Amino acid sequence: MRYLIRYAYDGSHFNGFQRLKDKKSVQGTLEEALSILNKAPVVIKGSGRTDVFVHANGAVAHFDLEIPIPSKRLVYALNRIVHPYIHVLDCKEVPDSFHARFSVKEKKYVYKIWFGAYDPKKYDYYLMYDKKLSLKKLRECAKIFVGRHDFHNFVSGERENSNGTIYQIKVKKRKNVVEITFRGKSFYRYMVRNLVGAMLMYNEGKCAIIELKKMLEKDYHKKLSTASANGLYLEGVYYE
Amino acid sequence: MRYLIRYAYDGSHFNGFQRLKDKKSVQGTLEEALSILNKAPVVIKGSGRTDVFVHANGAVAHFDLEIPIPSKRLVYALNRIVHPYIHVLDCKEVPDSFHARFSVKEKKYVYKIWFGAYDPKKYDYYLMYDKKLSLKKLRECAKIFVGRHDFHNFVSGERENSNGTIYQIKVKKRKNVVEITFRGKSFYRYMVRNLVGAMLMYNEGKCAIIELKKMLEKDYHKKLSTASANGLYLEGVYYE
Repeated sequence: MRYLIRYAYDGSHFNGFQRLKDKKSVQGTLEEALSILNKAPVVIKGSGRTDVFVHANGAVAHFDLEIPIPSKRLVYALNRIVHPYIHVLDCKEVPDSFHARFSVKEKKYVYKIWFGAYDPKKYDYYLMYDKKLSLKKLRECAKIFVGRHDFHNFVSGERENSNGTIYQIKVKKRKNVVEITFRGKSFYRYMVRNLVGAMLMYNEGKCAIIELKKMLEKDYHKKLSTASANGLYLEGVYYE
Repeated sequence: MRYLIRYAYDGSHFNGFQRLKDKKSVQGTLEEALSILNKAPVVIKGSGRTDVFVHANGAVAHFDLEIPIPSKRLVYALNRIVHPYIHVLDCKEVPDSFHARFSVKEKKYVYKIWFGAYDPKKYDYYLMYDKKLSLKKLRECAKIFVGRHDFHNFVSGERENSNGTIYQIKVKKRKNVVEITFRGKSFYRYMVRNLVGAMLMYNEGKCAIIELKKMLEKDYHKKLSTASANGLYLEGVYYE
């Protein structure tokens, strides 16, 4: 029986999503808990990896159990074990054809920037930013990045394919926080953080609009700045 | 030259305030930083200890330097070293008669309770509470605790003196958070957490008003429940 779980976590308490031998990871913690309930090893497939310090409000994974467990009981029992820094939001049975990564239709990431007075309790949850933030400038960048592009320059490491589509980038301010929401398909490693990095470069007058456009071209290969992981949230993963 | 510093910290990244040999403490981190700037060991006197996981938005300490450093430079240089989980808010020169603990006129603590949907990112900063919270009941407790009392039953460990005065207890709700603010003089170890524990017992119908009153009497010696440290903030320390 195949199950889908949707869960949230505080990334500052894990060494990223992917299972690691000697360090606490989100995948490792969930797999350990499931293996206890299943009384045999369980492997989960995540909707994608998140880096060290990146948070999730709505990550998704799937896994198979030979002997089914009612999904309500799974949520309750899992939460008792993975508490307090991971929280399973819900669980449901899905067809065998479902795959948490390959079936993804859309993903939503939110990047949070704190521009109020420095607060040590905010450090793990925001990019602490002490420069002036122009929503207008951030929105100018958003317009350029939205659409289907080859994001090779925003992706970390060599890859054969770095094509993706960003459906929407929304810039919203409330109190001392600016939130940049990215909706799209095919986000690659560091891509959101590098996009935010470029947006902040433009905000600080370190590059012009024409350079942002060039960043999306094949022959642009300059190193971009990567916005810190603390501010990034995997907000939701959506399927058919 | 004697200096006063006011500072904030994220208690979830320290093993309490007090200096420890092998573990990261707030006092140890500040003393190490000051010793680097002073090029000789510096000992700080805090306004009081906070336990593991307790946060501060306005803790105070004093220390002496033989060779003075301008206070603005001290703030800047200290913050570079103690970043990111401690933040020095300000620093000023004070007379030699000033003592961060003995000169205290009033302290303010805030206890924060989260009663919204469980969020793993809130765990370090609130008491996560999944029962119904009655502001009316909390305020009934507040009325009983305010004033000059012997708080022996709310204080951890044996002490000769557990007399103190609570000037005010305010209960405030905003969105998914209830904040209980305590203003007073002479708060002892676990006192605020035990007061909150008793308030929650009353909220849950586990004791009556008459029992709350008895808790302040000499011959009451029942073990009370201690509310978790995560929700407690040393909000401010005030002097003449």
